[in-house]
Amino acid sequence: MSTIRFALAQLNPIVGDITGNSLAILDAVARAHESGARIIATPEMSLTGYPVDDLASSLDFIRQSEAGVVALAARLATDGYGDAVVVVGYLSAAEQPEFGGARAHNSLAVLHGGQVIASYAKRHLPNYSVFDEERVFVPGSGTLVLNLGGVETGFLICEDLWRPDGPVAELSAQRLDAVVVINASPFDTAKDETRFPLLTTRAAEFACPIVYVNAVGGQDDLVFDGDSAVVDSTGTVLLRATRFVSALELIDITGTGASTDGIALSEPRDDVTPFIGIDLPDLEAIWEALVLGVRDYVTKNGFPSVVVGLSGGIDSAVCAVIAADAIGADRVYGVSMPSRYSSDGSKDDAHELATTIGCHYSIEPIGDLVTPFESQLGLTGIAAENIQARARGMILMSLSNQNGHLVLTTGNKSEVAVGYSTMYGDTVGGFAPIKDVFKTVVWELARWRNSVSRARGETPPIPENSITKAPSAELRPDQTDQDSLPPYEVLDAILEKLVSRRDSIDAVVTDGFDRATVERIAALIAGSEWKRRQGAIGPRISRMAFGRERRLPITVRRTTGLT
Amino acid sequence: MSTIRFALAQLNPIVGDITGNSLAILDAVARAHESGARIIATPEMSLTGYPVDDLASSLDFIRQSEAGVVALAARLATDGYGDAVVVVGYLSAAEQPEFGGARAHNSLAVLHGGQVIASYAKRHLPNYSVFDEERVFVPGSGTLVLNLGGVETGFLICEDLWRPDGPVAELSAQRLDAVVVINASPFDTAKDETRFPLLTTRAAEFACPIVYVNAVGGQDDLVFDGDSAVVDSTGTVLLRATRFVSALELIDITGTGASTDGIALSEPRDDVTPFIGIDLPDLEAIWEALVLGVRDYVTKNGFPSVVVGLSGGIDSAVCAVIAADAIGADRVYGVSMPSRYSSDGSKDDAHELATTIGCHYSIEPIGDLVTPFESQLGLTGIAAENIQARARGMILMSLSNQNGHLVLTTGNKSEVAVGYSTMYGDTVGGFAPIKDVFKTVVWELARWRNSVSRARGETPPIPENSITKAPSAELRPDQTDQDSLPPYEVLDAILEKLVSRRDSIDAVVTDGFDRATVERIAALIAGSEWKRRQGAIGPRISRMAFGRERRLPITVRRTTGLT
Repeated sequence: MSTIRFALAQLNPIVGDITGNSLAILDAVARAHESGARIIATPEMSLTGYPVDDLASSLDFIRQSEAGVVALAARLATDGYGDAVVVVGYLSAAEQPEFGGARAHNSLAVLHGGQVIASYAKRHLPNYSVFDEERVFVPGSGTLVLNLGGVETGFLICEDLWRPDGPVAELSAQRLDAVVVINASPFDTAKDETRFPLLTTRAAEFACPIVYVNAVGGQDDLVFDGDSAVVDSTGTVLLRATRFVSALELIDITGTGASTDGIALSEPRDDVTPFIGIDLPDLEAIWEALVLGVRDYVTKNGFPSVVVGLSGGIDSAVCAVIAADAIGADRVYGVSMPSRYSSDGSKDDAHELATTIGCHYSIEPIGDLVTPFESQLGLTGIAAENIQARARGMILMSLSNQNGHLVLTTGNKSEVAVGYSTMYGDTVGGFAPIKDVFKTVVWELARWRNSVSRARGETPPIPENSITKAPSAELRPDQTDQDSLPPYEVLDAILEKLVSRRDSIDAVVTDGFDRATVERIAALIAGSEWKRRQGAIGPRISRMAFGRERRLPITVRRTTGLT
Repeated sequence: MSTIRFALAQLNPIVGDITGNSLAILDAVARAHESGARIIATPEMSLTGYPVDDLASSLDFIRQSEAGVVALAARLATDGYGDAVVVVGYLSAAEQPEFGGARAHNSLAVLHGGQVIASYAKRHLPNYSVFDEERVFVPGSGTLVLNLGGVETGFLICEDLWRPDGPVAELSAQRLDAVVVINASPFDTAKDETRFPLLTTRAAEFACPIVYVNAVGGQDDLVFDGDSAVVDSTGTVLLRATRFVSALELIDITGTGASTDGIALSEPRDDVTPFIGIDLPDLEAIWEALVLGVRDYVTKNGFPSVVVGLSGGIDSAVCAVIAADAIGADRVYGVSMPSRYSSDGSKDDAHELATTIGCHYSIEPIGDLVTPFESQLGLTGIAAENIQARARGMILMSLSNQNGHLVLTTGNKSEVAVGYSTMYGDTVGGFAPIKDVFKTVVWELARWRNSVSRARGETPPIPENSITKAPSAELRPDQTDQDSLPPYEVLDAILEKLVSRRDSIDAVVTDGFDRATVERIAALIAGSEWKRRQGAIGPRISRMAFGRERRLPITVRRTTGLT
C-alpha cells in the first residue's frame, strides 16, 4: 500500500502557443510539487491547445509539438521536478494514411526524470457535433498502464472514456488503482447531466477512481468549462474543481503497491482535503461561459478593448455587461448611434447602461451619414431601413480601425436563426457574445445578472426598461420585432424543435404550433444560411450551435418528390 | 452473349429538390430509352443532390428520399420505362450509431419494373479535403452484382472506386462484364490527372469496362465537372462526355450471357457510336468551372440578376465577364463607384468593359457619401481608406436590396489569402467567382478569354489596360498593391507553397524565397483567418481552397516551445 498525491491542473492553453503553454504547465507543476503532488495531469492537447483543426496536418507544427514535449521534459528535470510524473497532451506524428490528410495522433506523453517515458494515442476520435477528429487525427492502438509509486494507473483521452468498447473495455479487464483521463471537453448547458453519470459508470467498471482533468478557457467558438473531478468506484465525487477558471486541485490516491518495473515516487508528508466545488445553476453557467468566451477571444487575440453599439435594447445591453464582466468596463466602449426613428427612451436606456457599468460612452447620430445615401441612391423600403444599420456598422468598424477595438456583434440566436438582421450592418464584428443564446434566454440572463448585482448591493447594470419594452430594430416608425416575427416565446419554442432537435415541420405542428408559422420559420432558417456563413463566431453554449456544429448547404430547394 | 445499351446520364441535381431531380431523371430515362438504352445510370445522390451535409441527419429528408425513390420507380413504369434498369443515387435510412449524428447511408437504388429491385450503400466514406462523409453517413457493407440482360454488372459509389480494399477487392474477385460507378466528384485542376489513371487501373483489375457517371453543376463552393466516361480493361477510353454540361451518352456493352436469376432486357436494334469528348486545356477548364459555378449559384437560388462593382481593375473585369458568360450580359449590372483617388483611366476601363460585354452600367460616385463619415468621425489613415471601400459595399447592397441582384464579390485568392481587403467593403456579396483563383492566374484567364473572343472575330471583353496596368486598390493617391505586398509572381509562388502544399516556412526559404517576406506572408495568412470566415463562398478550382477544405482556428499564437 502506498499513497501518492495527484494534482489536476485545469489549464487554459492557447492554440499554437507551445512556449506559453509549456510555461503554464511548468508553473502548475512547480506549485503542485511544492504541495506534495508527484503525479500532475494536464488536459488533452495541453501543449498545443485544442482544437487545432487542420493545423494537425502541418508537419511543422507536429515537429514543434514533438520537440516541445521533449524540451518540456528536460526543463522539468532541470527545474527540480524530475522526481514527479507529468502527463501532457500533445500532437505526435503518425504514419500518413493512403487516403485523407491526417498525419498526427492526439496523444499524451508521460514525463519523468527528464524524459518522455511513455505515450498513448487517442483511439476513439469524435467526428460529430463540433468535432472533426477523424479528419485531423489518426487513431492510436493499445492501452497504457503504468505503476506510479505503487499506484497502478491507466490512461485515456477524452472520447476514449465515452465509448464502452476498445480502451475502456481493455482497462476494465485489469486491476487498476486509478485511471487518468485528460480532456478538452467543451461546455454546453447539458454537459453536466452526462459527464458525471458517465464518470460514475466508468469508475464502477474500472473499480477505481477516475482522475478527470479538463481544459478551461475560450477558443474561438468553444468554451471549455473545466469541471475537473475525481469520482470513485461508488460514484462518490471526491474532488471537483471550480468551473470556468484555471485551477490546480490535489488529491491523494492509495495504490496496492509498487511493481518491479514501477516508477518510484515519494509519498506526501501531510494530509490534503480535496476541494469539492458546487454545481452552478444553468443561467450562471451560461453567463460564466459567455464571459470566459469573450475574455479569452479578446485577450488571446491581443485586443486592447471592445466597442459595442448600444441601441438601448436588451441584446446590446447584455453584450456590454458580459464584456465589462470579462475584461473590465474601462476596456469597453459603448456607442449610441441614434437615428430619427430612435426613441428618447432608447437613447436614455443606452446612456443609463453605460453610466451604471462605467464603460466609455459616445454618441454618433447617423442622420447626416444616411441622408446622402438615401438621396443619391433614391432608397426606399427595406433598402432604406438597411442603410441605417449599415451606417452603424461603418461607424463601429471605423472606430475599430482607429482605436484597435474588437467590434462585438450583438445578435442573438433567435435573430441569427431567422436572418432578422442587416448584413454588413448589425452583423459586423469579430465576436458575437450571444449568438448561441435564444432571445427568451437573453431576457432571463438579464434578470439573473441584475439580481446578482442587487444581491451584492450594487445597481443592477441592465436598465429595467431595456428588459421590459417591446423589442424593436427601430429602423422605421413604431416598428417592433413582432411585426415580422411571432412572439419570441413562440419563435424560440419552434426554433428549439426545428434547429436544436432537428424535428420535422410535421412533428412541430403535432406539438401544437400553427403550420403556416412553422413553415414560414423553416423557410426563414433555410433562406438565411448565407447570412450565418458570413457571421461572426461566438461562444457555443448549446448542443446545436450555428457554425461548426450545424453544417447545411446555402443552395437548397426542398421538395418532396413525385406523387 | 448479349449486348445491352447503357446510358450515362450526366445530370445536374439541386440539393433537396427531390421533385425536380426526379423529373430530370425521368426526362433522361425517356430520351435514353427512345435511343435504345435499357440500363440508365445517374450520378451519386442524383435524387437528393450532393453534398447534403447535415441534411443527411434530417429524418424528414431521409424519409422523403426513400419515398421519392419508390415514387420514381413507380412513375418510370407508369410512363412506359418499366422494362429498363435505372440506377439512382439517394439517401437511405441507417441504424443510428451510438455515437455521432449520422443516421443515413449514401446509397444507390436499382429501379426496374416499377420497383426498387436492389440497393447498395457506399462503404468508403471520404472524410478529408472538402468531404465530411464520416460525419454525415453510415458506411454500408457487402457488394452488389446483378445480371442485367446478360451483362454481369457490379456497382460502386465514388470513393469506393478510389480505395483498393473492400468493395474493389471483392468485385475484382468476381467475373464481371461491367462495373457501374456513380459519382459526385468535384472538379479541381488536377482531377483529370488522377481520375483517368484510376479508371485505367481499376478496369484492368475488374477485367471489364467501368461505366463512370459523374454529376455536373455548381453547388455552393463545389463545381462538378461531369467527365463521365467508359474505360475498358486495356485502358482505352471508349466514351467521354463533354465536361461542365448536362449530357446523356450511350454505349453498348456485351455480356457473357443471362443467368437464371438475371433481369431480361431487350438488345438495341441499331448501332451507336459512343461520343469521345476531348480534354480541355487548364485555363479553359477553370473558366468553364467558374462560369458554371456562377450560373448555378444564381439560377438555383433564383436570383434575377447580379451586380458587380467595376473598378477598372482586372478582378472586377474578369468577374463581370464570367457573369456575362454565365447568365447573359442583360442580367449583369456593372456599377462604377469612383472616388477622388480613382484615375480617369480606371473610369474609362470600367466603361469600356461594360460597353464591350453589353451589360448594364451606372456610375455612383462615392465622394458625397464618404465625406460625412470622414468629417463626423475624424477619420484618417487606414480608417479613411476603408470607409471608401465600405461606402461602395453599401451601394452594392442597396442596389441588391432594391432590385434583387446577387452581389458578386470580386476578391481573388491572393488577396483572400493575405487579407488584402476591407471587411464589409470590397468583401460584401453572396458569391465570389474568383476567390479560389490566384492573381497571376486571373491575368492568365483574362488573356485567354480575350483570345477566345479574338478567335471568334469579336472584341476582346477585358480592356488591355485592365490587364497591363499596376494593380491598385485606389484608396489613396498613387497607391499600388505592391506598396503592401510583394510582386504577385512572388506572392503567389509563396502562397502556393504555404497554403496549397502546407509547406513550412523553412521549406519555402530553402526553395529560394526571402525569409522575412515568407514570415510576413505567413503572419498575414494567419491574421486574416477571421476575414475569410466571414467571406462569401465561391467556386473551388484548386486542391486547397479556402473554406471547407482548409479549416484553421482564428485564435492561434504560433510559438515553438522551450529551448
